[in-house]
Amino acid sequence: MREEIRRVIERLKMLRTNLREHDFLLSWEQSEADLRAVVLAAEAFEVMFRANIDARPYRGGLAVSIFRDQSTRTRFSFASAASLLGLTLMDLDETKTQVAHGETVRETANMISFLTEAIGIRDDMYVGEGHENMAEVSRAVAQGFEEGVLPQKPAILNLQCDRDHPTQSMADLMHLRKTFGSLDALKGKKIAMTWAYSPSYGKPLSVPQGIVGLMTRFGMNVTLAHPPGYDLMPDIAHIARRQASESGGSFEIVDSMADAFEGADVVYPKSWAPYEVMQRRTEYLRAGQTDKLGALEKECLAMNAEHTDWECTEDLMAATLDGEALYMHCLPADISGVSCERGEVAASVFERYRAATYREAEHKPYVMAAMILLNRFEHPDRVLFKLLSRNQPRHHVD
Amino acid sequence: MREEIRRVIERLKMLRTNLREHDFLLSWEQSEADLRAVVLAAEAFEVMFRANIDARPYRGGLAVSIFRDQSTRTRFSFASAASLLGLTLMDLDETKTQVAHGETVRETANMISFLTEAIGIRDDMYVGEGHENMAEVSRAVAQGFEEGVLPQKPAILNLQCDRDHPTQSMADLMHLRKTFGSLDALKGKKIAMTWAYSPSYGKPLSVPQGIVGLMTRFGMNVTLAHPPGYDLMPDIAHIARRQASESGGSFEIVDSMADAFEGADVVYPKSWAPYEVMQRRTEYLRAGQTDKLGALEKECLAMNAEHTDWECTEDLMAATLDGEALYMHCLPADISGVSCERGEVAASVFERYRAATYREAEHKPYVMAAMILLNRFEHPDRVLFKLLSRNQPRHHVD
Amino acid sequence: MREEIRRVIERLKMLRTNLREHDFLLSWEQSEADLRAVVLAAEAFEVMFRANIDARPYRGGLAVSIFRDQSTRTRFSFASAASLLGLTLMDLDETKTQVAHGETVRETANMISFLTEAIGIRDDMYVGEGHENMAEVSRAVAQGFEEGVLPQKPAILNLQCDRDHPTQSMADLMHLRKTFGSLDALKGKKIAMTWAYSPSYGKPLSVPQGIVGLMTRFGMNVTLAHPPGYDLMPDIAHIARRQASESGGSFEIVDSMADAFEGADVVYPKSWAPYEVMQRRTEYLRAGQTDKLGALEKECLAMNAEHTDWECTEDLMAATLDGEALYMHCLPADISGVSCERGEVAASVFERYRAATYREAEHKPYVMAAMILLNRFEHPDRVLFKLLSRNQPRHHVD
Repeated sequence: MREEIRRVIERLKMLRTNLREHDFLLSWEQSEADLRAVVLAAEAFEVMFRANIDARPYRGGLAVSIFRDQSTRTRFSFASAASLLGLTLMDLDETKTQVAHGETVRETANMISFLTEAIGIRDDMYVGEGHENMAEVSRAVAQGFEEGVLPQKPAILNLQCDRDHPTQSMADLMHLRKTFGSLDALKGKKIAMTWAYSPSYGKPLSVPQGIVGLMTRFGMNVTLAHPPGYDLMPDIAHIARRQASESGGSFEIVDSMADAFEGADVVYPKSWAPYEVMQRRTEYLRAGQTDKLGALEKECLAMNAEHTDWECTEDLMAATLDGEALYMHCLPADISGVSCERGEVAASVFERYRAATYREAEHKPYVMAAMILLNRFEHPDRVLFKLLSRNQPRHHVD
Repeated sequence: MREEIRRVIERLKMLRTNLREHDFLLSWEQSEADLRAVVLAAEAFEVMFRANIDARPYRGGLAVSIFRDQSTRTRFSFASAASLLGLTLMDLDETKTQVAHGETVRETANMISFLTEAIGIRDDMYVGEGHENMAEVSRAVAQGFEEGVLPQKPAILNLQCDRDHPTQSMADLMHLRKTFGSLDALKGKKIAMTWAYSPSYGKPLSVPQGIVGLMTRFGMNVTLAHPPGYDLMPDIAHIARRQASESGGSFEIVDSMADAFEGADVVYPKSWAPYEVMQRRTEYLRAGQTDKLGALEKECLAMNAEHTDWECTEDLMAATLDGEALYMHCLPADISGVSCERGEVAASVFERYRAATYREAEHKPYVMAAMILLNRFEHPDRVLFKLLSRNQPRHHVD
Repeated sequence: MREEIRRVIERLKMLRTNLREHDFLLSWEQSEADLRAVVLAAEAFEVMFRANIDARPYRGGLAVSIFRDQSTRTRFSFASAASLLGLTLMDLDETKTQVAHGETVRETANMISFLTEAIGIRDDMYVGEGHENMAEVSRAVAQGFEEGVLPQKPAILNLQCDRDHPTQSMADLMHLRKTFGSLDALKGKKIAMTWAYSPSYGKPLSVPQGIVGLMTRFGMNVTLAHPPGYDLMPDIAHIARRQASESGGSFEIVDSMADAFEGADVVYPKSWAPYEVMQRRTEYLRAGQTDKLGALEKECLAMNAEHTDWECTEDLMAATLDGEALYMHCLPADISGVSCERGEVAASVFERYRAATYREAEHKPYVMAAMILLNRFEHPDRVLFKLLSRNQPRHHVD
């Protein structure tokens, strides 16, 4: 165990990253070294936790969470990351506060940051806003730090915005790495990120965008599949295409689940709402037009209902590579006959990969801890090495 | 102090318990050694706290609470237990979530458990459900642990279900032990668990059931008293009767408060709703039948109102052993002339025992910490001994 | 850094304070030594934090917060103080609970205090109540401690009541001290605490009362300015006058913002609702008279609207000492053209002092930590010295 951790730290040390005091908001704005560093630091935390090594670099200080949408999984992941690092979690509950801009954002960002090392934000309800809001908080604390108001500049973590969901996609990347042995082994592997039918509507675009925006970095052959009209944000396809060509992979968009699954090493069938719909939804939500929201929901559910055959069935799985593609999902999945009548995935397929999807999710707390470590410390490898050398058990061995 | 703690740990060491990785959900499913172990470990934590000894076996990790009913006391007890052990508290707020079953429970249980050492659950609103729900969570994390999803199997704590309230009853047991000198000294003592009048309705059955289900283990003569129609769940009386005969005590049900108080060493007068009423209430709550709920409440309050003479008065107390029985209550009590016009207990009686009831409640955080310790560590005595030897002050002495 | 901290602790050691196990609820009931001790201990914590020294005297135990009004800043300050000290934060959410008195207050205060070192309370909605409620909690835990229920007596912190807001005013005092070099340098300085126009209504009196009630202790020339009818509570002026004469300062009330600003070293322009209005508001709130509350709000906003010229403008600032008075605010400020059309302060004035007001707020967590330390430890100087000597980094240096 200790030898394994040491090797991971050694590799981390070699990387020239740009993460120090830099906020990781969109994976496609980070260098490949940055992405590899997050994976390595996350792995170091994960192995240390399982090896009963206390890996807390902090003795006090705050980790602040701001959730502008319901969340259980991500909430617990962030709380776990805070506990792993030795930080005190503090949630900023805005439920009764108006969405605020300008002076108020700058002021609040500073007021909650006097002793704060990290601020995690989920803001995915309104397309065109979430990322901008995070960037605004990021600028606000940077200014507060420069002006001497804040003794440190807290790391801002994107816990899901309208564009990307990097703690999810990085956890997914760790899952792929574990499954295939290394990041380099992902080269040439085919991953099918496909839309799937769901009886609900309004699911964010950030997961599929996060997947095609990240997996095209590692030479994978990424196929995005969706029925006509279920487009992602327009610039994402451009980014994915450019990245694929740079990494020696490929990126294509098809309108057939079967085509996407054909020979795939990995499949990620998951519902989302079309970009165009999310734009109208954002407009109506802002204007408080509940009647229009109701009509939009009806329209979308009817549109979805035309594609109930977009389901990850045993037949489709049989067409993947050796019939044994890795099934992935960010959870919760709409499982046919279990959580709904017809959904994203057949019950037998899901059950075969159920434990695997749980393990996929397990990486999230460590990814978040890694992002904070790499942002806040100049030599994260030295910090990890010190924690390893200190060799303090996380719980008493009896 | 240190010598006292050492003796407690020595006695704990002698016990052959079955608590390791086993969830303590119903006291009557635990062995006597298990019950004694919880009392001893709780005492060790309590004395260490008062002796300013840092007794945290953990350096990080989560303790998760799930409250499906309002709570202040138990909420703070669980938070205190988490702090005592060095765990980070994280509450799962389900207020806006549907009660969920099957896949969702299994998934959520795993998703909140990656770094979790204990999950405390209060689920007492619906008879026939609370215990089942906890058992389901218990099975879910056990499966997650077996499948390698979870690095550890969190202890599930019953913070009150429809059947039992073991952290309350165990704290009550510690209170009795302290009052009478030892658990063995409880043999032959008479405890009167009696219904008492309250102007409110719908109080859970778990406290009286917990008391008769626990105190019959220790050779006490347990008298359950209630007006006709205020029955507990049918199987509890069977359990209590069997346990009493095994422990050399007795169990009887009477319909007179005066008979129950006669010569009693301990009295526990407390209101509850009849089992039959709780069943109907559960049915109406599930069906959302607010009109029927209103009618039921009216009916019950009228039924209660026929028994306003079921009040723990000075006269009744005078009939107890030497007129000096120990008065117990899980709090808050309905105090006549203080918190309501007529209630469970006369103001003068309550005031005489007020501080004692507070001390009764004080044991709860330590009971919870003990349950977690005994579940999570193979040799809890060694862990406690290490904590004692480490001799780190909980707060700096000046 | 270490030398600076040592000097601060030495000065703290010299002071004969009365803070041990004594609750700091109103600044005017504390001795000057008490006030100086809070400032020094807060400074020690602040410098230690910036010097990366772990200053936690506790290893576990609770810090409990009770907010009877919305709060972000104070909530985060208290959470930060808890983290600084090594305590676990636990919030008592009363939103769904009736305001309770008598037995219930005493009981709840004890039930949440078994492992509790500090309870912070915000209770500023009802004039004539907030302070009384805190004093009641203070008496309740004192009694619980005397009766042996509580192993320790938690410190009660006033996080804003109807009369005073001492954590704010003490943070403001630290800001003045930093600005002018020392507390003694405040002698003879003129501070203008003036009402200012706001388009909202019902802002508490505790900030202006806290300022005139504290700054008259240090020989400052305190001018309170407000339009006719915007009086503070009647006894506050008496207290301020007496204190000013004792400290060699002065206290006057004027009805012109310009007069107050004339030659001032410090200006604190901030809106509040008249005492007489707050009394009526309290009456209507208690009686649930929403129609009367609406009418009162209308009446007050109309009354406010007659004084839109009470704005801290560049012209007014030019009349202060050398045109360079320190502008102070407890935040958030109503900034003309930024957060509202017309407000308390001109945008250019606020922007010039924006970072300074943020730094003003930064002292709060340290003030709270200091108040807890001084209440809970007999020799706080020795505790601070030990923490300094232990020399444990708050975060790993890399």
